[in-house]
Amino acid sequence: MSANSFGTLFKVITFGESHGKALGVVIDGCPAGVKFDFDLIKANLDRRRPGQSSVTTSRQEADIPVVMSGVFENKTLGTPICIVVENTDQKSADYQEIKNSPRIGHADDMWKEKFDHVDYRGGGRSSGRETLCRVVAGSVAQMVAQQLSAKIQVKGFASEIGPYKLTPAELATVWKQNIDSYPTRFPSLKNNEIVTMLEQAKIEGESFGGVVELRVKNVPAGLGQPVFHKIKADLAQAMLSIGAATAIEIGEGFSASEIAGQEFHKESHSAKYGGIRGGITTGEEIIIRVAFKPTSSIKDTAKKGRHDPCIIPRAVPVVESMAWLVLTDHLLWTRLDKIESRF
Amino acid sequence: MSANSFGTLFKVITFGESHGKALGVVIDGCPAGVKFDFDLIKANLDRRRPGQSSVTTSRQEADIPVVMSGVFENKTLGTPICIVVENTDQKSADYQEIKNSPRIGHADDMWKEKFDHVDYRGGGRSSGRETLCRVVAGSVAQMVAQQLSAKIQVKGFASEIGPYKLTPAELATVWKQNIDSYPTRFPSLKNNEIVTMLEQAKIEGESFGGVVELRVKNVPAGLGQPVFHKIKADLAQAMLSIGAATAIEIGEGFSASEIAGQEFHKESHSAKYGGIRGGITTGEEIIIRVAFKPTSSIKDTAKKGRHDPCIIPRAVPVVESMAWLVLTDHLLWTRLDKIESRF
Amino acid sequence: MSANSFGTLFKVITFGESHGKALGVVIDGCPAGVKFDFDLIKANLDRRRPGQSSVTTSRQEADIPVVMSGVFENKTLGTPICIVVENTDQKSADYQEIKNSPRIGHADDMWKEKFDHVDYRGGGRSSGRETLCRVVAGSVAQMVAQQLSAKIQVKGFASEIGPYKLTPAELATVWKQNIDSYPTRFPSLKNNEIVTMLEQAKIEGESFGGVVELRVKNVPAGLGQPVFHKIKADLAQAMLSIGAATAIEIGEGFSASEIAGQEFHKESHSAKYGGIRGGITTGEEIIIRVAFKPTSSIKDTAKKGRHDPCIIPRAVPVVESMAWLVLTDHLLWTRLDKIESRF
Amino acid sequence: MSANSFGTLFKVITFGESHGKALGVVIDGCPAGVKFDFDLIKANLDRRRPGQSSVTTSRQEADIPVVMSGVFENKTLGTPICIVVENTDQKSADYQEIKNSPRIGHADDMWKEKFDHVDYRGGGRSSGRETLCRVVAGSVAQMVAQQLSAKIQVKGFASEIGPYKLTPAELATVWKQNIDSYPTRFPSLKNNEIVTMLEQAKIEGESFGGVVELRVKNVPAGLGQPVFHKIKADLAQAMLSIGAATAIEIGEGFSASEIAGQEFHKESHSAKYGGIRGGITTGEEIIIRVAFKPTSSIKDTAKKGRHDPCIIPRAVPVVESMAWLVLTDHLLWTRLDKIESRF
Repeated sequence: MSANSFGTLFKVITFGESHGKALGVVIDGCPAGVKFDFDLIKANLDRRRPGQSSVTTSRQEADIPVVMSGVFENKTLGTPICIVVENTDQKSADYQEIKNSPRIGHADDMWKEKFDHVDYRGGGRSSGRETLCRVVAGSVAQMVAQQLSAKIQVKGFASEIGPYKLTPAELATVWKQNIDSYPTRFPSLKNNEIVTMLEQAKIEGESFGGVVELRVKNVPAGLGQPVFHKIKADLAQAMLSIGAATAIEIGEGFSASEIAGQEFHKESHSAKYGGIRGGITTGEEIIIRVAFKPTSSIKDTAKKGRHDPCIIPRAVPVVESMAWLVLTDHLLWTRLDKIESRF
Repeated sequence: MSANSFGTLFKVITFGESHGKALGVVIDGCPAGVKFDFDLIKANLDRRRPGQSSVTTSRQEADIPVVMSGVFENKTLGTPICIVVENTDQKSADYQEIKNSPRIGHADDMWKEKFDHVDYRGGGRSSGRETLCRVVAGSVAQMVAQQLSAKIQVKGFASEIGPYKLTPAELATVWKQNIDSYPTRFPSLKNNEIVTMLEQAKIEGESFGGVVELRVKNVPAGLGQPVFHKIKADLAQAMLSIGAATAIEIGEGFSASEIAGQEFHKESHSAKYGGIRGGITTGEEIIIRVAFKPTSSIKDTAKKGRHDPCIIPRAVPVVESMAWLVLTDHLLWTRLDKIESRF
Repeated sequence: MSANSFGTLFKVITFGESHGKALGVVIDGCPAGVKFDFDLIKANLDRRRPGQSSVTTSRQEADIPVVMSGVFENKTLGTPICIVVENTDQKSADYQEIKNSPRIGHADDMWKEKFDHVDYRGGGRSSGRETLCRVVAGSVAQMVAQQLSAKIQVKGFASEIGPYKLTPAELATVWKQNIDSYPTRFPSLKNNEIVTMLEQAKIEGESFGGVVELRVKNVPAGLGQPVFHKIKADLAQAMLSIGAATAIEIGEGFSASEIAGQEFHKESHSAKYGGIRGGITTGEEIIIRVAFKPTSSIKDTAKKGRHDPCIIPRAVPVVESMAWLVLTDHLLWTRLDKIESRF
Repeated sequence: MSANSFGTLFKVITFGESHGKALGVVIDGCPAGVKFDFDLIKANLDRRRPGQSSVTTSRQEADIPVVMSGVFENKTLGTPICIVVENTDQKSADYQEIKNSPRIGHADDMWKEKFDHVDYRGGGRSSGRETLCRVVAGSVAQMVAQQLSAKIQVKGFASEIGPYKLTPAELATVWKQNIDSYPTRFPSLKNNEIVTMLEQAKIEGESFGGVVELRVKNVPAGLGQPVFHKIKADLAQAMLSIGAATAIEIGEGFSASEIAGQEFHKESHSAKYGGIRGGITTGEEIIIRVAFKPTSSIKDTAKKGRHDPCIIPRAVPVVESMAWLVLTDHLLWTRLDKIESRF
């Protein structure tokens, strides 16, 4: 079944356990002739990689992508693109003890319940390591989207980390910010304070949740499909398929219930809609927020130093990647909307 | 394409414009031998129907379902089940003027942008009327789910309507409440107050958003699939595919970021997880919340009396139906989990 | 599951039992703006209809198509097109006796084995009546294909009926022939002889098989997809999904094994390839042949006069319809081949 | 899109160009707990491998499968199984000249037409090398099928090679024969004669087509789905998706038209049906025949010695593999037939 595939036209299937030989992705549905930017994949993987700063796990994973198929002379062939990342830091021994004592907050017991036979060496498919496949696929999606619609931009950042929240003033600056220059990806002067909090948490086996906010600029109007594939529905599935994600808001989201209709609908072109009306992009900025619970690798279950005290900084490129997958799928989908094609 | 279908194994495809000849649904993937409860469909349609109380639109639609196929001698045949509801209250004339003046907050202009040729007579597929197909399909899903797992129960209710919010005490009583005995489906002594507010809003062309909360009891552990079809991902897509939905939370949702990990993960069996861990049901109560924006049919665009001042009461059976669709799909899906089947 | 759907982009789902309330089809994936030719559907249904001549069953079925959705002001909306045909000649009583005595050569016992609960009143979904949905859907596909590629033509005809076979000279004339002017759809002076044979067979409860040959002219080059969706693979599935079909040949087909390679591949542009190379259309004439076994309604199982002594004449529009479905699916699919779209 | 995937529940996606880094397959939908027989994969690959005898191409490809995911402690995990085979004999230089002179009978020009940007180094995805992925996937399917239904057996063999045809007497012995003991896989005393013919053809750049016949024994009754996924339809798609395949017959196939109905349908349990009635397996022996055209690598286009004078011997394991894929898909599918599951 399609349990491990995502997307309708730009179809992505991922494979690989966290402690198996390799993880990878096959993309079936990438058009031929897309200029292939291998460095983009590596750059995005580096942004997701553990060990990139003091606020992430100190585990080191090289994460070297190898293109197996679908690309020739730097362009896509129209055939399936398979990209594989071998696992190198497979310290299975570390996890041997887990075999009979599932970690609280993890899904080990659920998978056992479901499949009987599971890979107990560190989560298997339910490990956060699985998200690297999303970043690889999302990077290819980005190449496609930006060739179809050159000015489209996606920008994710941390808008909440534990008790910290970006202020409206800070939120107003995000398009001008170099998000990656903040180890927390929380674009605020509070960054250093949060770094200290997370370093402390790492020592104490504490962890924090947070919110990743995502903006999309210069998206063509008209993306999204009737009824079940509204673009907000596909974004919701995309984001809630990420391991620790617990909620998503589009535009006003939960605050929408606090505003009466005459105020809410005063103008057609309002950020309140989050760039989506009737499930279809309006061409205005898309605004979504994705909440994550605190990392479950805590205290005794967390190997000292080998856990993320907060997943948010590393979740940013994952959320961006899922957004690219949805956008690219729908960009291609509009080719089928009318008897006269748009692209 | 599958723009109008939902589900993987219990596959539902809906059709019909709000002012066309009929709406309906085809279910491809319902097993043979399911006892067919036609009255359940009618009862659920009545719960969604406009005109059921003073707080909903006064439009009257009979909504009579007709089974075209797939059922014989009160049992399903294993063949596609088609159920059609003819449109009777097609006052297209009312909408003729809309042709050249799209309504703010509606999606008319978006659809025009997308398809060029659209049904301007009242939203076509983007009309809320489309949701009746979901209720029909969800009712069939309920029949299947309750035959596979007799004790499973789904209960939706309004937990926020405009400025009103259920208190923790009120939330604790919901399983004992007869939700439908409240015209607002907001199980609280405040119900009358809200009725007055909504009747007033109907007169003034004002509208309110809110939140539908959904609980699922006695769900088997082990529902959900790896990575992209985590049950929370499928629930998110299901709910955000509803017209006015703007957000979804699973368990703690956005509050999850406010609790530190050692507190959050203190116990494996916690309502904080919302009954889902690793994307898989734990067997504990599922808790989700879906936010809706205020109805966009307001002021001059709303025909006097012919709009819903708040969609929440009528959204409750729709949210329940989408939940049944997801649950049934995943109940069937577990049959494929292991080489020795579970069912 | 998708047991009752066909196609990838131009997705067709059919429903309805032969003795239920209605049969019908939903098309999900028809672009907006297609000029809708309702008369074409009626004309093609008439070509498939029983009782159209002395060589077909004398059962009379009106087969009146009703468009439920997806069409407005004579153009498609881009939403699902549902078309329903009610059953009027449901003489279930005729079939009551079948309940406990499955007919040899029919599939009743197979369905019983599979589903336990079946519609014994005349085959249910395994009845030949199911093919009317294919003709309805194929007619819509034809509208789409001919708007995408105006000169494309599909022509089916009987090339074998029982012991009769078209001669090479007769085969050479088929594009000039009005096939429907022959009750047998066997374009030959032998037509009358065959009519006599079939009328006699009808009286005696005898039946004959045969071959439908199909030609496609002016098809664009480049239709078909890599590996599993070669156009010949999709045509094979399409044709072998028809009830009584037992075989399919593309181009030389089984004769290909009788010709040595140097002769076979002497020229690139050869009818031997049947218009398909590497699974992709070359732009040359497509030639396929579909074999059908003799009708299984014979002798005691056949109601006097109420069976087809040979299904071939009525199979011609069904084979054509399946071809249109495949062609249209692949015409749309080419829109996704390259980063610069073709259509 | 799903251009490179096959199957509905046991879903297989293949990737890789003949001269790229690797070929491989991902299986999404294999249940957990299947005993994994790696040697079966290697054995079947060896049966397909070039260079295995004097009648096949002398190209040598090691074809070493590497399991990347989905298997742990010799059992399947229920997660996607990825198996990769690296290309080692990539003599691209040999093919450089092909860049501007497409080979007659090959699909190079078709792919160029379709995708603009293609891999000219030897067919890319349209190379016969692609079939090794089918053999890998088919071997896994075989493991699943034989655990679900222990006695099921699949047996393929050459029944025609160029001018040679198995006699009825020879056909009657096939279940007792060790097919692989014949280099031609044509189980007849004529084997040596054919070997001589093919060795000569290899020298002269000549080639021959033929027919692979396939039998399936001890298959459960009830496999196949209504209407579009009749098992014969899925088998037809499976077989016609193989590069050089030109035709398929089920049971009597084209001969069915030569037998009158009263004779044809004399008994329910007849080899004439080929083990399939109403598109559903009867439990009797399945009999199908697949025709292949002569290899197109001939004369000047064929590198001396590096072409197959007849693809039939090496096509046998490919046809068997495609059969296993279809059978396993449908074995799993029956789990969804009824509200009470069969397995």
